[in-house]
Amino acid sequence: MPRQQLRSGLEGVTVAETRLSDIDGEAGELVVGGFPVETLATNASYEETLFLMLEDRLPTADELAGFRADLAARRDLCEAAHAVVRRAAADGESAMDALRMGLAAASLDADTGDHRAAAKRVVAVVPTIVAAYWRYREGESPVDPDPDLGHAANYLAMLTGETPDDHAVRGLETYLNTVVDHGLNASTFTARTVVSTESDLVSAATAAVGALKGPLHGGAPGPVLEMLRTVHETGDPAAYVRETLDAGERLMGFGHRVYRVRDPRAAVLSTAAERFYGAAGERAFYDTVEQFESVALDLLAEHKPDRRLATNVEFYTAALLHGVGVPRELFTPTFAVARSGGWMAHCLEQLADNRLVRPVSRYVGETDREWTPVERR
Amino acid sequence: MPRQQLRSGLEGVTVAETRLSDIDGEAGELVVGGFPVETLATNASYEETLFLMLEDRLPTADELAGFRADLAARRDLCEAAHAVVRRAAADGESAMDALRMGLAAASLDADTGDHRAAAKRVVAVVPTIVAAYWRYREGESPVDPDPDLGHAANYLAMLTGETPDDHAVRGLETYLNTVVDHGLNASTFTARTVVSTESDLVSAATAAVGALKGPLHGGAPGPVLEMLRTVHETGDPAAYVRETLDAGERLMGFGHRVYRVRDPRAAVLSTAAERFYGAAGERAFYDTVEQFESVALDLLAEHKPDRRLATNVEFYTAALLHGVGVPRELFTPTFAVARSGGWMAHCLEQLADNRLVRPVSRYVGETDREWTPVERR
Repeated sequence: MPRQQLRSGLEGVTVAETRLSDIDGEAGELVVGGFPVETLATNASYEETLFLMLEDRLPTADELAGFRADLAARRDLCEAAHAVVRRAAADGESAMDALRMGLAAASLDADTGDHRAAAKRVVAVVPTIVAAYWRYREGESPVDPDPDLGHAANYLAMLTGETPDDHAVRGLETYLNTVVDHGLNASTFTARTVVSTESDLVSAATAAVGALKGPLHGGAPGPVLEMLRTVHETGDPAAYVRETLDAGERLMGFGHRVYRVRDPRAAVLSTAAERFYGAAGERAFYDTVEQFESVALDLLAEHKPDRRLATNVEFYTAALLHGVGVPRELFTPTFAVARSGGWMAHCLEQLADNRLVRPVSRYVGETDREWTPVERR
Repeated sequence: MPRQQLRSGLEGVTVAETRLSDIDGEAGELVVGGFPVETLATNASYEETLFLMLEDRLPTADELAGFRADLAARRDLCEAAHAVVRRAAADGESAMDALRMGLAAASLDADTGDHRAAAKRVVAVVPTIVAAYWRYREGESPVDPDPDLGHAANYLAMLTGETPDDHAVRGLETYLNTVVDHGLNASTFTARTVVSTESDLVSAATAAVGALKGPLHGGAPGPVLEMLRTVHETGDPAAYVRETLDAGERLMGFGHRVYRVRDPRAAVLSTAAERFYGAAGERAFYDTVEQFESVALDLLAEHKPDRRLATNVEFYTAALLHGVGVPRELFTPTFAVARSGGWMAHCLEQLADNRLVRPVSRYVGETDREWTPVERR
């Protein structure tokens, strides 16, 4: 048998057909549900985006009203999952661990065979879990979901206990739409692999949360914020970047495995952040962020001319989520709030034309070992 | 760009090098940790097998004693996870859902960076979760792990509350060794994908449980037992097989994606089952099983001559696990008890030479959709 090429990261291996998103890493373009990401992210509510993911078209006004109500009716978290999340908060578990625990414990009637209902249930309940964890952690009571609020507004309301202002909702909604789906990233591919065994959508989403927890996938926007705040105080981005690079450390918020140019999502989030900070009268922080990006790109090009390191999505995620009031400990869970829509839509695609995922490995171990009983070893 | 071939199931795509197991599906051969599966399964304790998975050699007598004690010391389940499992049992959740919930909720200090310790902790605690679920479900108190018992014996003791006899322990141990690892099956590949993001081993194991829950992967040994019991009562395997095939249904326990001949694990488990039932004075049931296999193979060859359907691992799993006293509802979770060793060893291999798993998808959706505001749709 010919020796097969080793594809450790599955780079360039096409595993699925999808109508959910299309990435052009060389051109820096992203299509989500048939729209350029800029168009969808800035115009849609998250409900419209999710409907688009599930139905491959935008809803009419009546359909949208029905879908909003349907999703809102699925937000409640069962007492068993609440208990798990409360305990996780009390035990000092991280927000992503708490989300894995809470989601795993929410059975959500996922085994009924109605995959579309389970998909909506998972997306509806993820913000409830994250917000409940945060409230417990802060020593506060969880805020019940408000069925009169949209998905994004309700998430902010459950976090803070207050009705959020429109600028914050629009900022968060833009973020959620921007990162709802992005090809076969590790968490989405994990979810598809899990349902390829004909397992259920809660198991798939729980698995995806586990993958998203990893710093190589969902884990860097928190540290980016620390960096931006430090530089906002010192006012000297160049010094910060030089120190980081001279220490041989990676500069967070720059570089992506797929994009060789500026991540198109960075552009969408940058515009959204500029709008938000302008409206909130905090333009100074946004100016720092913008200046940092410009200085960092110049210095990266100088220090690592062969790497083509461009701004990635995490850089402006940190700025925008911080602005709209999401605590930095919840940046990655808020990524999960958004991406759960993509996970679930991918699972439905997988189930509609399923093939069990089972790659092969190359054996590099010993062969024909002989057994020696323990007393003679 | 040339159009890439679509590899939906990743058939034949080599994703990893491993020294853990080697499958030859055409010859029907399986090597585990350098040993033919027959040799390892019938000679080793599960602790020796796990040591071999983690260290690539068999332990000396002193090392084995130390490893047994080390593993036994990691069996306790924290109260938070106990509460989750108790609740799952009370709510009527399935055993695999309960295992996902309990494992997800067991933080096990997995984020300390000591991956080898986390790996042992996961393997040690899976039987505790499964057995606790069963005891709660039966309205009994969980049985504390007994540090004086080996891994297999302790699992049976936690299930039944009684010290198991040696034949049952040897039967279970043979099963655990036989299925400890099997290349890049869906659950193992899921676990590797999760840790490829540098996530933790509990998240990886939880994800793997979700994949194993799917009937295409871990879900058929229970129904096989029903089939065998039915035939044991009627005494007419041919009638059963004919009815099943004439109804256009799949005959459980036969056929495997990788093996074109008899699954070598079926041979090991068949021998173990024969030995167990003989020693237990229940040879009649084993005779039914053997006769059923023979009749089924003849009729399958006749009905589906082009399919090469051979006996798979689930067929004798059902017979053997039933014999040693594992309830049929726990067959798949007991598969997880065994396979958790493979999952964890694969995760350590992945982390030792990591590359983020990120395949690509082919976009088949619309492009350049234009946005229409909802009031004009």
